[in-house]
Amino acid sequence: MREMLKTVEVQVRGLDVEVMEEARGRWDQLTKPLGSLGKLEEIGIRLAGIQGTVLPSVERRAVVVMCGDHGVTAEGVSAYPSAVTGLMMQNFSNGRAAVNVLARQMGADVHVVDIGSACEDDIPNIVREKVKPGTDNMAVGPAMTREEAVRALEVGMGFARKLSSEGVQVIALGEMGIGNTTPSSAIASVLTSHPLAELVGRGTGIEESVLPHKGHVIQRALEVNQPNPDDAVDVLAKVGGLEIAGLAGVVLGAASEGVAVLVDGVIAAAAALVAYRVEPKVGPYLFASHLSQEPAHRILLEAMELSPMLHLEMRLGEGTGAVLAMPLLQSATRLVQEMATFADLGL
Amino acid sequence: MREMLKTVEVQVRGLDVEVMEEARGRWDQLTKPLGSLGKLEEIGIRLAGIQGTVLPSVERRAVVVMCGDHGVTAEGVSAYPSAVTGLMMQNFSNGRAAVNVLARQMGADVHVVDIGSACEDDIPNIVREKVKPGTDNMAVGPAMTREEAVRALEVGMGFARKLSSEGVQVIALGEMGIGNTTPSSAIASVLTSHPLAELVGRGTGIEESVLPHKGHVIQRALEVNQPNPDDAVDVLAKVGGLEIAGLAGVVLGAASEGVAVLVDGVIAAAAALVAYRVEPKVGPYLFASHLSQEPAHRILLEAMELSPMLHLEMRLGEGTGAVLAMPLLQSATRLVQEMATFADLGL
Repeated sequence: MREMLKTVEVQVRGLDVEVMEEARGRWDQLTKPLGSLGKLEEIGIRLAGIQGTVLPSVERRAVVVMCGDHGVTAEGVSAYPSAVTGLMMQNFSNGRAAVNVLARQMGADVHVVDIGSACEDDIPNIVREKVKPGTDNMAVGPAMTREEAVRALEVGMGFARKLSSEGVQVIALGEMGIGNTTPSSAIASVLTSHPLAELVGRGTGIEESVLPHKGHVIQRALEVNQPNPDDAVDVLAKVGGLEIAGLAGVVLGAASEGVAVLVDGVIAAAAALVAYRVEPKVGPYLFASHLSQEPAHRILLEAMELSPMLHLEMRLGEGTGAVLAMPLLQSATRLVQEMATFADLGL
Repeated sequence: MREMLKTVEVQVRGLDVEVMEEARGRWDQLTKPLGSLGKLEEIGIRLAGIQGTVLPSVERRAVVVMCGDHGVTAEGVSAYPSAVTGLMMQNFSNGRAAVNVLARQMGADVHVVDIGSACEDDIPNIVREKVKPGTDNMAVGPAMTREEAVRALEVGMGFARKLSSEGVQVIALGEMGIGNTTPSSAIASVLTSHPLAELVGRGTGIEESVLPHKGHVIQRALEVNQPNPDDAVDVLAKVGGLEIAGLAGVVLGAASEGVAVLVDGVIAAAAALVAYRVEPKVGPYLFASHLSQEPAHRILLEAMELSPMLHLEMRLGEGTGAVLAMPLLQSATRLVQEMATFADLGL
């Protein structure tokens, strides 16, 4: 952990390379051509290294949906008003949003955390850990203070540790926050050095004609705030979001506890990259799920050397893509447990 | 059905466009940005059109693993001897091959059909529908007669109809047959007109240095047999395989009964393209699952305008990739059933 993040402490172990070697040997004995299960083998071997056993398990699964609002929506960068964040929290609470449906199918628990929404209602089944009721408008000043960013990171770390103590083995990163592709593209721009034109997308569905305006707003936020690319927490505070900080914290907390993390779309990937820059040792704990339609997503994943499994042209967030990838992690663990070896076949 | 396939009769209905329109309207009312669930929406709408209901179901799932041997292995085109086909049939029978493990996970029944293996053992749990014990060497003459190809097509059609009558709603195409990427590349070459150099891959894992030899063998088979690109059954008979013919039959039979088909890797895709050329109306019943490492796979899928969902760098066959995609079809059906609408949220 670099010293920039002064108030939180996190220690991440490297993967167990001996167990990984043993796991690789086991995969090579299974009744299939060498390496023919592709990424599933790599996933299985990585999970073995994370859990320190050649027979890892992902039977306890959760998705954490961090919710926050964004002052920058005042600039007209989103197709929906901020009030939709609260309405969607109600929808999560009722178990009827897309992520709830998919999590039921995949056998994952849904945890919704209000870390920074502007919604004042007391909604059942929502964890209240509000750092503040939405960020400030990053086009005119920092989205939040460094202290607030650190507090949001700590909320995420604490939540991941709690899930780990309850036996959760894999966490999917989910989020809800009208306007949050804007800070995600800003973070991607600062941390990957790609030009904004390659990073700004239509989010939940703004018109093609609004894209240049969205780019200008981000450009202005970067000029006003001058985030330091070598200090991910500075970037997070100045042009990020509370739910993004919370998810970055989930990554740090999960990795520190030996819990695998499934990255979702562009917002989750921006959060993961912040965590990765704060502590590069989280890298091997990250698994890319899908490739979204937001152009920044591929670039963020590449910055972490992650390769997505699902190509579904989705752009919903909530953790939906990450939850869809859960059965693939499960397949990796089951294949190594249940397949015959060549020796079993008398070869 | 074109008249080339004289001895089998198949009628495939077009999808129900009215139901599809209704389904599209329903997807657009769900609590998510318009179109944000990408391919899952397209899948859901297609399944609605196939089943004639806005609430389709894929709860009854099966994978059909057609097994056959290939005379062309005499030319040294495969990393494994033909005897492995029989050993793998034993492995399927024991429930311990990769496809068995994945099918258990995904709740699909496994049906293994010996349509043309050289194996003489009577293996339990294997359906015996052997047209002949392996094809002839296509490098010196036709792999089989037209009558044999038609018989194998009929076996597949009959099997798909039987599964449909038992309530199966989606069938994954699986296969086992040492040497069968060679006829698949040959079929791809004739039916897509792409040069062989773009189509020949390492199969189960031949050395890079053997690739040119494999290409030469296929070239020789094409010169010796002169398959007619306008007659898919002629191509199938001359440079195909019995399990490929069986799977093409499964596609025709499934589509004729309103059953969705999940295409697997390069061999299944070659079979699907044969069926598609015999009866283009099967197209909308086909769903691509994964993109394999065999170079011909992408080209075959493109020839059917199919776009794969999973990018896992697999090259195993057996139907493994197709079975891995089953939860995605299920997700499409569940989302439309269980998600709230905007009206539910008071919007």
